[in-house]
Amino acid sequence: MERIESHACFGGRQEVWRHASAVLGCDMRFGVFLPPQAEAGPVPTLYWLSGLTCTEQNFVTKAGAQRAAARHGLALVAPDTSPRGEAAADDPAYDLGQGAGFYVNAVAAPWAAHYRMHDYVTAELPALVEATFPVTASRGVAGHSMGGHGALVAALRHPGRYRSVSAFAPICAPSRVPWGEKAFAAYLGPDRDAWKAWDACELIAGARERLPLLVDQGGADEFLDAQLRPDLLEAACAAAGHPLVLNRRAGYDHSYYFIASFIDDHVAHHAAALAEDRP
Amino acid sequence: MERIESHACFGGRQEVWRHASAVLGCDMRFGVFLPPQAEAGPVPTLYWLSGLTCTEQNFVTKAGAQRAAARHGLALVAPDTSPRGEAAADDPAYDLGQGAGFYVNAVAAPWAAHYRMHDYVTAELPALVEATFPVTASRGVAGHSMGGHGALVAALRHPGRYRSVSAFAPICAPSRVPWGEKAFAAYLGPDRDAWKAWDACELIAGARERLPLLVDQGGADEFLDAQLRPDLLEAACAAAGHPLVLNRRAGYDHSYYFIASFIDDHVAHHAAALAEDRP
Repeated sequence: MERIESHACFGGRQEVWRHASAVLGCDMRFGVFLPPQAEAGPVPTLYWLSGLTCTEQNFVTKAGAQRAAARHGLALVAPDTSPRGEAAADDPAYDLGQGAGFYVNAVAAPWAAHYRMHDYVTAELPALVEATFPVTASRGVAGHSMGGHGALVAALRHPGRYRSVSAFAPICAPSRVPWGEKAFAAYLGPDRDAWKAWDACELIAGARERLPLLVDQGGADEFLDAQLRPDLLEAACAAAGHPLVLNRRAGYDHSYYFIASFIDDHVAHHAAALAEDRP
Repeated sequence: MERIESHACFGGRQEVWRHASAVLGCDMRFGVFLPPQAEAGPVPTLYWLSGLTCTEQNFVTKAGAQRAAARHGLALVAPDTSPRGEAAADDPAYDLGQGAGFYVNAVAAPWAAHYRMHDYVTAELPALVEATFPVTASRGVAGHSMGGHGALVAALRHPGRYRSVSAFAPICAPSRVPWGEKAFAAYLGPDRDAWKAWDACELIAGARERLPLLVDQGGADEFLDAQLRPDLLEAACAAAGHPLVLNRRAGYDHSYYFIASFIDDHVAHHAAALAEDRP
């Protein structure tokens, strides 16, 4: 573990750390914001999963989430989006390989050796964070686009591991849209039945925990109809009786300007759920 | 004039425009945030001048200023930091040439042909903005580091042109620190007397308008003692009886995390002054 950035920020600290990930077999970076309340005692943590092409930097520099996190006393942890380095396989396309891990555990060559982002973000990283920083084991998870898919799947696959979940413009049904079909075929292989374990719309039907989903979706998002499909999530939740708040935000696109505009609402949503979890 | 970005943001719009600058003799980009209030009628404008190595992007993506600007009904305009392109002279160093215009009007070769950033940000750009967007002629000016110097000098050289001024970690006395000495020698020539017209600490003594200065300075800023010297600004203001609020923020560095942490205070400062200016 090596701290490579540390900045005072809204009375707390925004840091970036590098560590050797055993799960991924490479060095990884993640951002961590510690609110001022962490000086007095451990605080809950909101994990943020970023979208295609992002690193740990995008969320920490552009979302403006530290302000609300400092007010509510939440830590923020923002990992990178894939394994990195020469050892990990890559692909020239922006939507496969490095920068595009899709938060699954790959089983197909050449990806299986390193691309286990699901285990990394749901298990290895929280264990490391909780052993290193003044945080409790109360966790929320959120994300954007590919990371919104990752957040929904993380919560749906692990009842009890998260107290709250939300997403901005998530890829709601990756098995049925081009981005997801390409990534799942590569990482998981051609058997589409195996893809269901990594698709929020498929997981909703069998969810053992009715964790409410909070989703914001921009109405002017250039990927809305072809890649994101919140209508399919809405239908899956309605069919299963799963609680969903889907805020459609007219005029907003897929950028961090959209995220920044509504991040306070999401931080407050997580803070409320995580406060209930306190002893 | 060409709009090259447009995003919904906090109920308003964050845009980036490109235009041919007659003053600079090249194409320039600037960011403009229009708050929701601009749909109902013209609003005042806060100009932001960025620091070394920055473009128009740094402030619009990292400062999180749109949130407060939307609340107060201020437009934000963020120009690039120098002339750009093959025609404009450049230098391999980060602190001279493109990305480092220092907001002066250059008189020495090879810079004089294009490097007239002071006239650009104080005259050409406001005229263009006020002719194009739903804004009034009520202006505030703020900036960071090199741009903090630029903001102080813009306000001090033009009584009546701005209703408010503020700066984060400004280069307070460029004539007396390495960054400024290098830039002024290049852009203005060797006569140090001519530099005084571009140095806030020199201009304070003769200021014809007692516009209050708001300055925030991080206590852990890596450039504090060698390049920024707020102590010299404090002394100049004390000697001249010029109103100054200098907030020293323990632990904060020179980054946009510092700016984001206190930008709400600065936007509120400008909004209060610009509201007084309304008919």
